[in-house]
Amino acid sequence: MPNTFGKLFQISTWGESHGPSVGVVIDGCPPLLPLKEAEVQAELDRRRPGQSDITTPRKEADAVEFLSGLFEGRTTGQPLAMLVRNADARPEAYADMRAKFRPSHADFTYTAKYGLRDHRGGGRSSARETIGRVAAGAVAKKILQLAGGVEVRAFVTQVHDIIAPGLSQFPTLEQVEASAVRCPHPATAAKMISRIKQVRAKGDSVGGVIECRVRGVPAGLGEPVFDRLEADLAKAMLSLPATKGFEIGSGFAGVQLKGSQHNDAFVKQGKRIGTATNRSGGVQGGISNGEEIVFRVAFKPTATILQPQQTVDVRGVATELQARGRHDPCVVPRAVVIVEAMTALVLVDHWMRNQAQNRTFKF
Amino acid sequence: MPNTFGKLFQISTWGESHGPSVGVVIDGCPPLLPLKEAEVQAELDRRRPGQSDITTPRKEADAVEFLSGLFEGRTTGQPLAMLVRNADARPEAYADMRAKFRPSHADFTYTAKYGLRDHRGGGRSSARETIGRVAAGAVAKKILQLAGGVEVRAFVTQVHDIIAPGLSQFPTLEQVEASAVRCPHPATAAKMISRIKQVRAKGDSVGGVIECRVRGVPAGLGEPVFDRLEADLAKAMLSLPATKGFEIGSGFAGVQLKGSQHNDAFVKQGKRIGTATNRSGGVQGGISNGEEIVFRVAFKPTATILQPQQTVDVRGVATELQARGRHDPCVVPRAVVIVEAMTALVLVDHWMRNQAQNRTFKF
Amino acid sequence: MPNTFGKLFQISTWGESHGPSVGVVIDGCPPLLPLKEAEVQAELDRRRPGQSDITTPRKEADAVEFLSGLFEGRTTGQPLAMLVRNADARPEAYADMRAKFRPSHADFTYTAKYGLRDHRGGGRSSARETIGRVAAGAVAKKILQLAGGVEVRAFVTQVHDIIAPGLSQFPTLEQVEASAVRCPHPATAAKMISRIKQVRAKGDSVGGVIECRVRGVPAGLGEPVFDRLEADLAKAMLSLPATKGFEIGSGFAGVQLKGSQHNDAFVKQGKRIGTATNRSGGVQGGISNGEEIVFRVAFKPTATILQPQQTVDVRGVATELQARGRHDPCVVPRAVVIVEAMTALVLVDHWMRNQAQNRTFKF
Amino acid sequence: MPNTFGKLFQISTWGESHGPSVGVVIDGCPPLLPLKEAEVQAELDRRRPGQSDITTPRKEADAVEFLSGLFEGRTTGQPLAMLVRNADARPEAYADMRAKFRPSHADFTYTAKYGLRDHRGGGRSSARETIGRVAAGAVAKKILQLAGGVEVRAFVTQVHDIIAPGLSQFPTLEQVEASAVRCPHPATAAKMISRIKQVRAKGDSVGGVIECRVRGVPAGLGEPVFDRLEADLAKAMLSLPATKGFEIGSGFAGVQLKGSQHNDAFVKQGKRIGTATNRSGGVQGGISNGEEIVFRVAFKPTATILQPQQTVDVRGVATELQARGRHDPCVVPRAVVIVEAMTALVLVDHWMRNQAQNRTFKF
Repeated sequence: MPNTFGKLFQISTWGESHGPSVGVVIDGCPPLLPLKEAEVQAELDRRRPGQSDITTPRKEADAVEFLSGLFEGRTTGQPLAMLVRNADARPEAYADMRAKFRPSHADFTYTAKYGLRDHRGGGRSSARETIGRVAAGAVAKKILQLAGGVEVRAFVTQVHDIIAPGLSQFPTLEQVEASAVRCPHPATAAKMISRIKQVRAKGDSVGGVIECRVRGVPAGLGEPVFDRLEADLAKAMLSLPATKGFEIGSGFAGVQLKGSQHNDAFVKQGKRIGTATNRSGGVQGGISNGEEIVFRVAFKPTATILQPQQTVDVRGVATELQARGRHDPCVVPRAVVIVEAMTALVLVDHWMRNQAQNRTFKF
Repeated sequence: MPNTFGKLFQISTWGESHGPSVGVVIDGCPPLLPLKEAEVQAELDRRRPGQSDITTPRKEADAVEFLSGLFEGRTTGQPLAMLVRNADARPEAYADMRAKFRPSHADFTYTAKYGLRDHRGGGRSSARETIGRVAAGAVAKKILQLAGGVEVRAFVTQVHDIIAPGLSQFPTLEQVEASAVRCPHPATAAKMISRIKQVRAKGDSVGGVIECRVRGVPAGLGEPVFDRLEADLAKAMLSLPATKGFEIGSGFAGVQLKGSQHNDAFVKQGKRIGTATNRSGGVQGGISNGEEIVFRVAFKPTATILQPQQTVDVRGVATELQARGRHDPCVVPRAVVIVEAMTALVLVDHWMRNQAQNRTFKF
Repeated sequence: MPNTFGKLFQISTWGESHGPSVGVVIDGCPPLLPLKEAEVQAELDRRRPGQSDITTPRKEADAVEFLSGLFEGRTTGQPLAMLVRNADARPEAYADMRAKFRPSHADFTYTAKYGLRDHRGGGRSSARETIGRVAAGAVAKKILQLAGGVEVRAFVTQVHDIIAPGLSQFPTLEQVEASAVRCPHPATAAKMISRIKQVRAKGDSVGGVIECRVRGVPAGLGEPVFDRLEADLAKAMLSLPATKGFEIGSGFAGVQLKGSQHNDAFVKQGKRIGTATNRSGGVQGGISNGEEIVFRVAFKPTATILQPQQTVDVRGVATELQARGRHDPCVVPRAVVIVEAMTALVLVDHWMRNQAQNRTFKF
Repeated sequence: MPNTFGKLFQISTWGESHGPSVGVVIDGCPPLLPLKEAEVQAELDRRRPGQSDITTPRKEADAVEFLSGLFEGRTTGQPLAMLVRNADARPEAYADMRAKFRPSHADFTYTAKYGLRDHRGGGRSSARETIGRVAAGAVAKKILQLAGGVEVRAFVTQVHDIIAPGLSQFPTLEQVEASAVRCPHPATAAKMISRIKQVRAKGDSVGGVIECRVRGVPAGLGEPVFDRLEADLAKAMLSLPATKGFEIGSGFAGVQLKGSQHNDAFVKQGKRIGTATNRSGGVQGGISNGEEIVFRVAFKPTATILQPQQTVDVRGVATELQARGRHDPCVVPRAVVIVEAMTALVLVDHWMRNQAQNRTFKF
């Protein structure tokens, strides 16, 4: 189960950076969903390496192949398996890593845990594993869209110390995709891109923050105790490589408010009950309240840098490491689609769970 | 499963604020653990209402009763069920809440989800639900202690805008328990207590931050993809009432560092391989690396305040709410033991999972 | 999870034969179900020891107490915990078992597995554990009844070598309850009772077969691969103490038919599509087809007998065992309600699962 | 999760009879296991269509490809995905099934459940789905063999009304594989083969019984309540296409014994404690006792027959069906390896679970 996510819309991913392939199988996919490979491919293309001059130069088409679960253009309710072959593998670039532990990578912990590791490009710990998530997320997003026009939109709000101003409205996909860094504020995006190029030129890397907003989610998704919607979103986000923090609504800044300042007053909005403010971030008591879901995720600077670093080898002897291989100097531009994918997976799963418990029987 | 947590050391909690009882059953508890009710009671006493003059005045002994699973002072490997009766229930204090939605509480979302709610004291959404977690956490902490001297220590580092200085060393339980606010820095603790009393006097509330550190965890706990140790910790923390954020190691602040500043260099430390710094917070690639685990959790200001608030009633008509009932003006002092409990539950579960996959068979 | 059953309507049971209590918590119970303790008690009374002169003389009122999850007579969607105190415990009767392994009991295997065992009355391996199942099953049966008039009816068809003739129609509850042995064929019931008394008089025991039929189940419950309806029923039945076999529809006898004799022809029956025969037992491809579900369960003779038996003690030394304690000379009369309970639990769970995957989204 | 099996050694299968492929991903595979594609292929070859003149003539090489999880000939602890392409698909042979429901097939129930079905060769309900199980089972068998010399051996004991005499000893793989029907008693095997050819000549089919024995299993595997070893074996077996019954040890015949005849006396056997007889079938109280595990599975006659049959079409109108396509006249010869696979999967999973709960911590 360590590679399995979701309770009813359940995905299992497989694959390593330099193995034969990466992929995913969705178990529990609702039937009758119209689905084309091109729709999944479009999301994979947003995550693909080499898509801009601020990402890794690794060349991968990341072409998806459906292995099962479709019949005449619709899902059948049976497992939907999707495969992407690894093409541009260069394991020889990692020969040096076989014997050395890269700082702040998973090399040491995998070895401690399993007694061996596939050192080629990080093996399973590589972000190539997220291809399966993005493919499954594309299906989840399609479901959300058809189910009720739910839109999941992630975007970059911070790179290093460059912070975008707050958004006055829900950004469009075009606004996000307008810049290579996927920050919908053009002036800030330009600065971010410049900063990324600057640190890459010095063989260094930087971190960033992604915000995700979801609109159209009905009230009632999420469970009241352990499987709170924000808890499952937090888990989903912290399950992504390089993440170090998660906050929803007012987040860490909300600590500095008093209750009288923080509470979201209920107001009638047309036919529905809404809130005048949204410091809750769309979730109260673990359950969506119908407002926009808003959360942020912190990503650390990429661990792979081209500067020489001190480390130890597998015997514990001090040594110097000079990374080669290909990597992103900042992960957030490509991580945007991964954040969206995980968010969509969480929402579809909770939608199904809510339906099961609260809509199956009428008393 | 919404009220069930853990895969191998699995707990299910039950109970409402003003129902007959709250409790928990642990399924999967290892056998032969020496265990006394007094050990569980000691932890419950740390979370008990009315323990100091900055907590709720509700009077509850919170006396635990073991319902099963013990034989001659040891666990048997069978389910361990524990019960706490609710004593000081005053449902009449909540009569006004039957028809009105309290801002930033779960009243509205429960109604939207289930079609009804137990309005008395928040019902299931009350923090009394965490009694079961603390009872189970007491068992988990005992296991960790006996298994390898693992210590889990949470403490308050921020209340409102009062922030404690960084700790130079792992705090003792006595240092934490020395003040009612459970901040191990005495001068800051005094300021925090003063601030809490001040806002309570005005019928208001404040938020806070809890830091948790764990030492003695072996390298190898946590799974590489979805069930990363930090992902499960994030979920555990965001599953607690009133939490809005989680960060591990460098967290959100780490975004502002470059990779060359952020990476933790490996060094030989005696016989083990350690890291010179700990911006990773004890976890790399989702797996513990043997360093201290360090994370922080943000708690919003208590939603219940005694000032009048604007809201709507169940029909959506605007109305004013004047809270009665009893509550904490700041939740973090009592939440410290709950954070420890959830942390211990996550660690025991991952310890068992690691053993199962990686130590069952020798090839 | 070893003591947890169900994926969406999930129960966790606890308790030992001579510990303080037995009980169960239901996680995932749909809200708004009208429910009274008396309805659960009525089912527990059907399973209660001492109810007739062919069951164990142990005196237990088995009075159920609701611990949580009800509000004003309806379920709230929150965990429903139910407790039964053990009253007539006589651990001293089992002193001899502390050091000896009873043949065909769980004494040896528990010791091998856990390194200790609660020897008093079999501890967790006692059929008293099924009290929690019956209590939860009572809730599941109420759901099935209100959801669509689904009726679950189990009854005894064989005791030792006495076999009841095939039923021409679905038996009523009254017909089943008319005899202490719960065989709806009066003449056979009388013979069965006589046989049970006869073997008990000699300090011996006998086995039996229970058949279970369910009518009113809609087509579509069950999953096509691992979680087939018959697979989950088989698991549910083989999870009961003393069971050795399960068969559905034509069962083992169906092996002797040819396909041309065995296939159930589809026919139009009013507005629905039905089958002319029901050798499938109501399930095809793992999924209910709307016909009656029909299966049978084999129970071995009670392992506890009052005749002296050869065995070994915990050191492996040969010894003689003379059982005391109280037991049923034949378990099937009291097991009828347990079979019904497990069946209802499986059906409610699958109903919710089917709704989740196939009714949540409309495309 | 409907296509996912196991808790710790967890498999998810995918694929349809006439879709692009079938496959499986194992999540939780222990690391360091030496494994070759040829070892998996050997098991697939035992299940392959067209292997003898009493099986379906469909031509499939069923060549397995490893997609992930191996590094330098050993498992890495990461997901192990395996793929088999469908080659000899002839969907046109099933055109008639698009509009008609085949008797005792899953055509009707899939349509009722999902609102559509892949009619080509039964789609997901085809036994081709079991390829993924056999591939995963090959890995599980390798683990069992290396872990402690555990041997899993299934074989045919009955075809139609031809019943093999009881075995005096554990059969060798060679004895089982000696005949196309996989019955280790040569004279009976000859009769079975003759019978199968005879019914096939008439366009008909027959059922059969498979017995499975496992030796070398240590005492202690299995959980005492819901996840009893026999319960999980029963579920595993009833999850196979065409199965109608399961019995362990004395099974249904044991009902006719008295307790004094049925109980297995404990005896010292060298250094271990064993039983003089084995009516328990190797499991007591849900937990293995170290004796041989012995169970039997009933398979109905193949639903596909070449004789014309009465049925209805998708609108419910009566019609005649004349099957084409390719099928086995009796499924048991090829099902032997599938039974072994499922048994090995259950055992590995329980072995890991036992280790997790009972061997992780020492108190």
